[in-house]
This record gives sequence, C-alpha cells and structure tokens, in this order.
Amino acid sequence: MSESKKVIVFGADGYIGWPMAMHLSRLGHQVVAVDNLARRSWDLEGGTYSLIPIASMETRVSRWKELTGREIVWRKLDLCDAGSLDALMSEFLPDAVIHLGEQRSAPFSMISRDHAVRTQVNNIVGNLNLLFAIHSIVPECHLIKLGSMGEYGAPNIDIEEGYITIEHNGRSDTLPFPKVPHSFYHLSKVADSQNIHFASRVWGTRATDLNQGVVYGVHTEDTALHPDLMTRFDFDSIWGTALNRFCVQAAVGQPLTVYGKGGQTRGYLDIRDTMACITLTLDNPPEIGECRVFNQFTEQFSINDLAALVASTRKRMGLQTEISHVANPRVEAEEHYYNAKHTALLDLGLQPHYLSDTLVSSVISTVERFKDRVDPILLQMPSVTWRSGGNEIWDKYANIDEFKSAGDDLLRLIDSSTR
Amino acid sequence: MSESKKVIVFGADGYIGWPMAMHLSRLGHQVVAVDNLARRSWDLEGGTYSLIPIASMETRVSRWKELTGREIVWRKLDLCDAGSLDALMSEFLPDAVIHLGEQRSAPFSMISRDHAVRTQVNNIVGNLNLLFAIHSIVPECHLIKLGSMGEYGAPNIDIEEGYITIEHNGRSDTLPFPKVPHSFYHLSKVADSQNIHFASRVWGTRATDLNQGVVYGVHTEDTALHPDLMTRFDFDSIWGTALNRFCVQAAVGQPLTVYGKGGQTRGYLDIRDTMACITLTLDNPPEIGECRVFNQFTEQFSINDLAALVASTRKRMGLQTEISHVANPRVEAEEHYYNAKHTALLDLGLQPHYLSDTLVSSVISTVERFKDRVDPILLQMPSVTWRSGGNEIWDKYANIDEFKSAGDDLLRLIDSSTR
Repeated sequence: MSESKKVIVFGADGYIGWPMAMHLSRLGHQVVAVDNLARRSWDLEGGTYSLIPIASMETRVSRWKELTGREIVWRKLDLCDAGSLDALMSEFLPDAVIHLGEQRSAPFSMISRDHAVRTQVNNIVGNLNLLFAIHSIVPECHLIKLGSMGEYGAPNIDIEEGYITIEHNGRSDTLPFPKVPHSFYHLSKVADSQNIHFASRVWGTRATDLNQGVVYGVHTEDTALHPDLMTRFDFDSIWGTALNRFCVQAAVGQPLTVYGKGGQTRGYLDIRDTMACITLTLDNPPEIGECRVFNQFTEQFSINDLAALVASTRKRMGLQTEISHVANPRVEAEEHYYNAKHTALLDLGLQPHYLSDTLVSSVISTVERFKDRVDPILLQMPSVTWRSGGNEIWDKYANIDEFKSAGDDLLRLIDSSTR
Repeated sequence: MSESKKVIVFGADGYIGWPMAMHLSRLGHQVVAVDNLARRSWDLEGGTYSLIPIASMETRVSRWKELTGREIVWRKLDLCDAGSLDALMSEFLPDAVIHLGEQRSAPFSMISRDHAVRTQVNNIVGNLNLLFAIHSIVPECHLIKLGSMGEYGAPNIDIEEGYITIEHNGRSDTLPFPKVPHSFYHLSKVADSQNIHFASRVWGTRATDLNQGVVYGVHTEDTALHPDLMTRFDFDSIWGTALNRFCVQAAVGQPLTVYGKGGQTRGYLDIRDTMACITLTLDNPPEIGECRVFNQFTEQFSINDLAALVASTRKRMGLQTEISHVANPRVEAEEHYYNAKHTALLDLGLQPHYLSDTLVSSVISTVERFKDRVDPILLQMPSVTWRSGGNEIWDKYANIDEFKSAGDDLLRLIDSSTR
C-alpha cells in the first residue's frame, strides 16, 4: 500500500464519513474522525431517522478497535469553532483533510429562510475556517473537499471537470465552469468552491474539489463487519435520495413516487466507489497552488431510469412494484440534456461498481430486512416545495403529534437497538 | 419625470447610499433610508475616518427636509436581523429596494480570518434575508443589488454583462459568466449574485445585479447643497481607492504609491453616473423572473493611467506630483488583458461624466481644502497583505497609541465640525 498519512475526516459521523474513516484506517493511515453531530440533532429536530440503526461514535470506534486492532481517534468538534479547529490542526498536523462536514440536504436548505441561512453560514464558515487553518498551520496539507455535481445544474452543454476553455471574440481562457445550482444547499457548495479556488491562487493551497454525484449503497467492506459499524440509510423526503425512497416505498408496498415527468438526470455512484475515489485522490495529491476538480460519479440515470431499475430488479427477485408520477415539489427541468465528464478518477485507476448489481446485492435486501422500522407517516410526508420555501408544509407535518411521537418512539428503538 | 415609487435604500449611510437617497427623494420618490451604521463602527474599530466630515443620519435627513421640503424616512436596521427587516418591508411595501448595505472593502476582508468570515456572513445573510423578504412579502418588488466588477477578476477574454453564450462540443448554452474574484469580499458578492440568480429562477424574483466599477468623485447635485449633506471620502489603505489615495498623497506632498507594476486595469465611474445608472435601472425594471446584470462603469484605467492622470491634472493646476512603485501587497496580475462590456446602461440613456474633467472640477480641489485633516500615519499605513492574511501588519498599526489617539482626535474634530 501507499505511505501512511495523517488524515482528519471532518463529518465522520455521516453516511460517507464513517465508512471513510474506517476505510482509511484499514489502509494504515492515522485517522482522526471529527464531527459536531449536527446530523443527529437535525434528525431529532425534524423527526427523521436512519432506517439502519446506527451506533454512537464512541461505540463505533471502540468496536472498530476491538475487531481490527486499529485506532480511530474520535473528536467532537464544530468546524465553525475556529479556535478549537486551530488547536486540533496544530495537535495533529495532518497531511490531508477530508472535508465532508457540511449540511448536505437540498430540501433541508429549502424549508425556510432559517434553514437556508443556517445551511449557507454553516457550510461557508466551516470551509473558510478550514482554509485559514491550513494556510496558517499546515500550508502543504492537501484539502480534499466534497462538493456536488448539483453545483453545475443541468446546462445544455457538456459538463467538464471544474474548468472549461472558452473561445470568445478571438481570444481564449480556461475558467471555472459556470454554475447554475439547484438549491440553497448547492449554492453553499458553489461558494465553497469559489473560496477554495481563491485560496489556491492567493495562498498556494493544494486542493481537490470532488463534485460528487448521488451516492447509493448500504455497505462497504468495513460497515459489514458488525452492526455497530453500519452507516446510516435515509429514506424520508428531506435526507433520503429518490433511489432510497423508491426502495423503501417498494418494500412497504407503496408505489414509487416519481417527481413530475421523471426525466431529471444526474450522476450516481456506489458508496464503495466513493471510498475508492477519495483514496485515489489522497494517494495522488495535487501540486502546491493547484485547485483540482474531479467529477465523482460513475453512471448517469434519470429518475425514470431509477424507478424502472428498482421495479425490474425486484421483479427478478419475485417482488411486485408500482410506479406513479406526483407533482414535482422542486423547480427544475424535467426533460433536459445532461452529459457530464468523469474521466479524471477513472484515469487514476477507479474500478466502478454498477448500480444494477448493487441494488440486487445489498440495497433491496437490506431495506426488506428493516422494513418494519419504516414509519409510513414519514414516508408519506411530502417534500419541501421549492416555490413556497416550504414553511407551511414542513411545519404542518413537524407539528403533528402522531408524527412526533412516532418519531420519538423510533428514536428510542434505534437507541436501544444499538446498545 | 417618471412615476413616484416607494423605494428603500439599504446602506444609506455609505458613500453612495446617502447621495442615492437624496437623489431619489429629489426625483419625487418616497424614500426610506436604512443602515446599521456598521461603516462608522468599522472606522472606530480601525482608527480610520472620512476626510470630508460627515453628519449623522438624523442631521442629514433633517437638513435635507429643511433645504428641499422633501422627507427621507431614516431607519437604523441591520439586514441580518430578519424579523426587523420583514416588519419594515411589510410596513412600506416597497416597489423597489436598492441594496448597498454590505461590507465593501477588499482589504478589510483580507485582514484576518475573522474579517473574512464577518464579511461573507454579513453580506450573504443580509442578501438572503432580503431575497426571502421580497419573496414572501412583496414578490413583485424590484431588487437592485450592487455587485462589483471585481467579481469577474481579469480573464483573458472579453467580460460580458453577466452571461456568456458558450459553444462547446457542438452544443450551446447561455450561462453565468465565470468568475475569478479578487478577494474574500468579492467572493461574497459572487455568492450574492448566485443566490439572486437562483431566486429569480425558482421564485420569479425580478432583479438587477449591478456589477459596479470603482466609483470616484466627491459631489453630486445634492451633497453640494450644504456641508451636512456631504458624503464620505476615504483615503486610508483599507477603505480608500487607489485614486483617492493618490489625490491625498499628492496634496500632502508624498509620492503616489503605485502597487507593483501598475498595469492592473479596472472599470471606473463618477459618483454622479452611479446616481444616473441606478435611477435608469429603477425606471426600467426587468420582467418577473428576470435576473438582469449590468456592468456599471464608464471608462477603463490602469493604476499607472490614474497616477499619470492625477500628476498631469495637478501640473495644469500648478501643483507638483511624484510617482513611486512599491511592493504589491495584493496577489493579482500586474499586466493583463482587460476588456469589459458596458453597453446596457448606455443603451438606457446614460450620459457619462469623464474622470479627467471630474478630477479637475471637484476631487483635487476638495482634497486640497481638507488636507490639514490628513493623518500622515494613516496615509502611510501599508495595506493588508493578501499572502499573509495581513494579521500582523494591521494589528501592529491598529495598536500604536499615537495612531489611535490621532484617530480619536480626528473623530472628535469631525463630530464637532458637523454639529
């Protein structure tokens, strides 16, 4: 394997963060897992929960040590707390930081003004603090930042990896690819990307901005070792992806709800490929002052493709599935051109897993196993509407006593099941 | 004249905001002048001050009423206070809002992490709050937002007005012009522009984003009426433009300090043209859902052009001027292509004033008149350095007792002279 590095994973309590911390630990890196546990508090705030029960960070790192003999250092810390961040960076002097520590739900950011502001302030300030800490404490540290393919939107031209060479009036320049993002959340990522690009130009920060597609899958080599090591699976309309929602809807016998015409096309990848992409990025750092952008996904699908794939995969497993189209709560093109480049990570050696195999091998069977834990009220809750800002709908559902008590019951259940 | 509109000017205590409020009031609009007075508190914090003494907002609006019979409603309010903003918007139901209420200094944003974070949070949150207030309270209100030409940076292709049509791999789309901004301040404006563009797409907000060049000039028709109506003139390295610094350096017999080679080229305009541009924008609102971008400047100059122009203008007035080149504290190209389009406002009828005339008619004579108020320590203070984040230099100067007491004396002088 490659040389052992000191790596801090920010957002290590999240869906990707926790498997990432284990993956790097398994590879022999010295891993510090950092999180402010905001994701769990947002669950408590909104009555949402992971379908797969998840253990506390303390339980996770201790189980990991017990099973593998490897140590992951766990630190509760908020990236918005600059003083604590500087102290951590000075203590560990990381070779690389993997920044997954952001509010990452587009619908969450569209619930209300408060949610939009919280999302942008949390994400932009945390990222700025990290840029300043790298600049002043470990200027050669490699910043690996998780961006989103949703930063680009759905332009009518091919999406390049971060930059595009534009010929205009007889002159030419290579400039950041223009962005037309999908939500206040995606806008926060665009602001992050701009700040990182600036830091690389002015301070020589070495950075890789990973514009990631939609991630699916429930298992990595490491999460499968023990129930305490599993990562979260979200299926509600705020935190769950359309694919997760479809799998859960099918499991409980509801029709798959496609928003609008269903032609919305995006890039997707398996969570095991996320592990591989970030590891390849870590092993192949950019030069000082280079702000590299990779588009991190392996396949493109429309929402209709996903619904059809879930239905046909379940059919082969002897399970019935219906598909219905509902009014689209988002403002987005439902039929559009979409062709995004994603060769940089393949060039570094990525060997993709494909969705059709993963659906069969793990997602559908896992969801079937946990289907008794699905709260039908949560599953039926309509998504935040982009047009209204969503206040009314969300408030209505968040205040239903039945909904709240069901959420509380489930949180207790989750808690007890992981102890 | 055109119909009378209800207009709120945010940032009405600033260099442009106060003349803007008077200009619109003179034209018969119903004007509410809003500011949180942050600019005055930043002066107190850093020991800077306006060369031209400025009156309090209360004195200004009362003098304006006395001299013209017209009423400007003054409200102290912070755009980051969403509740108070909503109350104001509900009370006045404006036809248009002119948003000048942001931290607007690039060097200020580069002093330290704290200054970068304060700049981005203040500007982004204030603008988001305004977008939400318009959306929920006055959805047909025209948002006129002051952006900056510095959002674009200095690309090697012609800069278009907000959008560029890109032909790529046989397809074409018109997308936001790619931006490579100059500072954390300019990055905050880029984030604002992205948020506004999103609001127009999703909510139908009608907006004009004015990417303004560097503004110069000390007088408008209204500021010249009475000393209490004058607007600020900054000459220090944090708040003053290079042109202002040159005029003051020349007045006190110091050489003009050009940063680096001096080929840095930007767009410029007279403050009277700012009045005209914003008025033309107000009189010609965009459609619902349209996010219009105008590049608001009239002439391009390099720093060397400005220094030479100040020297030659003073020479014609019988005054001597020296020019020297100093190490550039910023990270920027010092020789580069620069050609920015600016036809939209000319098409609406703008009649530009030109710098060479304005320098003679008002700036140099005004600076000469107030030159005894120039604190040489403040004038000599080196600017914030882009590479270091600037902490050390700024802290050093901000803590010199002599500097502080000189600043305090001048603030008292300013205060007494305007009463």
